[in-house]
Amino acid sequence: MIYLDNAATSYPKPERVYDEMLLCMKEFCANPGRAGHELAIKSGRAVHETREIVSRFFNIGNPMRVVFTKNATEALNIAINGVLKTGDHVITTSMEHNSVLRPLKTLEKENIIELTIVRGNYFGEIDIMDIERSIKKNTKMIICSLSSNVNGIIMPIIDIGKIAEDKGILFLVDASQGAGSMKLDVQEIKADMFAFPGHKGLLGPQGIGALYVSEKVKITPIMRGGTGSRSESFYQPEIFPDMLESGTLNTPGIVGLGFGIKFIESFGIDNIRIYKHMLVKRLYEGIENLSGIKLYSLNDINKNSGIISFNFIGIDSTKVSFMLDSMCGIASRSGLHCAPLAHETIGTKASGTVRLSVGCFNTIKEIDVTIEALKRISQML
Amino acid sequence: MIYLDNAATSYPKPERVYDEMLLCMKEFCANPGRAGHELAIKSGRAVHETREIVSRFFNIGNPMRVVFTKNATEALNIAINGVLKTGDHVITTSMEHNSVLRPLKTLEKENIIELTIVRGNYFGEIDIMDIERSIKKNTKMIICSLSSNVNGIIMPIIDIGKIAEDKGILFLVDASQGAGSMKLDVQEIKADMFAFPGHKGLLGPQGIGALYVSEKVKITPIMRGGTGSRSESFYQPEIFPDMLESGTLNTPGIVGLGFGIKFIESFGIDNIRIYKHMLVKRLYEGIENLSGIKLYSLNDINKNSGIISFNFIGIDSTKVSFMLDSMCGIASRSGLHCAPLAHETIGTKASGTVRLSVGCFNTIKEIDVTIEALKRISQML
Repeated sequence: MIYLDNAATSYPKPERVYDEMLLCMKEFCANPGRAGHELAIKSGRAVHETREIVSRFFNIGNPMRVVFTKNATEALNIAINGVLKTGDHVITTSMEHNSVLRPLKTLEKENIIELTIVRGNYFGEIDIMDIERSIKKNTKMIICSLSSNVNGIIMPIIDIGKIAEDKGILFLVDASQGAGSMKLDVQEIKADMFAFPGHKGLLGPQGIGALYVSEKVKITPIMRGGTGSRSESFYQPEIFPDMLESGTLNTPGIVGLGFGIKFIESFGIDNIRIYKHMLVKRLYEGIENLSGIKLYSLNDINKNSGIISFNFIGIDSTKVSFMLDSMCGIASRSGLHCAPLAHETIGTKASGTVRLSVGCFNTIKEIDVTIEALKRISQML
Repeated sequence: MIYLDNAATSYPKPERVYDEMLLCMKEFCANPGRAGHELAIKSGRAVHETREIVSRFFNIGNPMRVVFTKNATEALNIAINGVLKTGDHVITTSMEHNSVLRPLKTLEKENIIELTIVRGNYFGEIDIMDIERSIKKNTKMIICSLSSNVNGIIMPIIDIGKIAEDKGILFLVDASQGAGSMKLDVQEIKADMFAFPGHKGLLGPQGIGALYVSEKVKITPIMRGGTGSRSESFYQPEIFPDMLESGTLNTPGIVGLGFGIKFIESFGIDNIRIYKHMLVKRLYEGIENLSGIKLYSLNDINKNSGIISFNFIGIDSTKVSFMLDSMCGIASRSGLHCAPLAHETIGTKASGTVRLSVGCFNTIKEIDVTIEALKRISQML
């Protein structure tokens, strides 16, 4: 099997991720932060170590501002629903995932916020002047993904961060696509909040994600419960990360995330970036001239986080994905990728796209087999 | 090490839970419900299988009404914040955990709900007449735990369920303590919603929990995002379980939960109940006459889910826990157990308690060693 669905969940993980998660579960997985015995302390320490790893990896500074969540969706919902208030204006882009669009569109429908969606061009590229022009007196937050999950386009977050900082607007980055595929520094990005999943580019397991929240942000939790702190109080403690982390944490998942990031650090994030782009480039150039193909991704390391989205014109994307899987054992994703406006932007709302997304464990040979498979499919259609 | 902190996180898990989670992660852990390729289908199937296992185990009927969450706290927050509206009255008990109390007290503080907290007696026992007497015209929901995490007292949920059904009031059960320790049937309990974690009595890993929501309940999600369904819509789909399951699910965690429950089924839930109570009884009778000891739990299989909470009068609970751990390698929990009113009810608000909680992997020998250790400690104090 050739796995090219890494934008959904990266697979496989580094061996050490499996090993350390198993070790955690078998040897010491008690409740972190809830008791004073040896195993609980060991669990608590493992959780804190990953907070430090995450913090170092994204240059967060204070590990206590790293909030563990179940996935990026929870992180984005905390950031959006925990900060926005009646009368706020929000700017986002047409390339966002439903994990950003659905919370925002719901707040808009409930007359809580005003929403401006800046539209990308055919490849999803945003003109940052459009962002700037959309700013109003009541603009509270700009939300932008690091990279689109539909076609991999990398968004101009550094430029947007500068604008947001200049205007005193909060900047929330959805790093679901791209975290683990390129060097990211929340200080440089000037991100006030930064959400990411563990199970994609960071090579951790499913069931873990995180939200960085800067000291500047005033936030209210969307869930409340046991935190192991201030147990005598009927109200959620306001200290970080406890305020936003209710209930028992996913210790093995957190350990897995930590070792995923450590693998990336040991390999070198720039090496991963270059290697993944080499695969993307090879694939792109191997299929761009196939009869009837239409590519929606760019062949540019600065504009693509590792995805090639395409269609054979007039052919249902699901059919092509099915052929790739059933005839050639190649795992892709087809249809709409939970981002309806992104499809509208790139002109694939009706058809969806076939999405091939590379990971750092894909090989050149796998790419070559995929190219040959697509050649055969293009001749059969 | 003797692990008697199973009420926080059960440890260890059945070997098969580790094995199957590892197999899932290594062999097929793609994104469930998000693509049509073989691995995604296999992941989706594994998730659905656990939905069926959970459904069978609690007699839920329709597996699509089982919503996977990260823990019981998320499940309770969805149930509370997703259902209650301005003007609703809620009845709960003084034995609840902060995962129920904090969401409710916050809604009360925000003038959204009216809240009545029915107080238990010295052992946390509730008079169901007090529940009945508290019902008002606007009573929307009764919330009760299956069993207290502080002293293990089993609450009269069958009786409460009958009252709730009679009066047309929704009944939410927090089964965090007790699920996996006794036979539970949501139809018999007449629970409209039923929340539980995977990592305690059900012998699954941390990072997974669930909420059962009956067809009767009108609920709004507290998080929105990608569901893999109706991707073209800006709004959360209203179908179950998608409406309440946004973002990538924790497939290995779900697999682990499924195999935890299968272990319980193979061993027999009644056998587990009897075995655990045998341990509780032995421990209780072994320490009840120690000098200066005060027990807050009952030695009755029908009134205790597997916890012995106690203090040596005048001695800080943390000190005793520390001695158990450092001198004898016995893992307990001390202090306030995230349930301030429960401590007030049983008279331990200032001191907290030492909590010993048994699991089905504890042995008689471990209990005997613990009894001897407490004898020695009582002589040293």
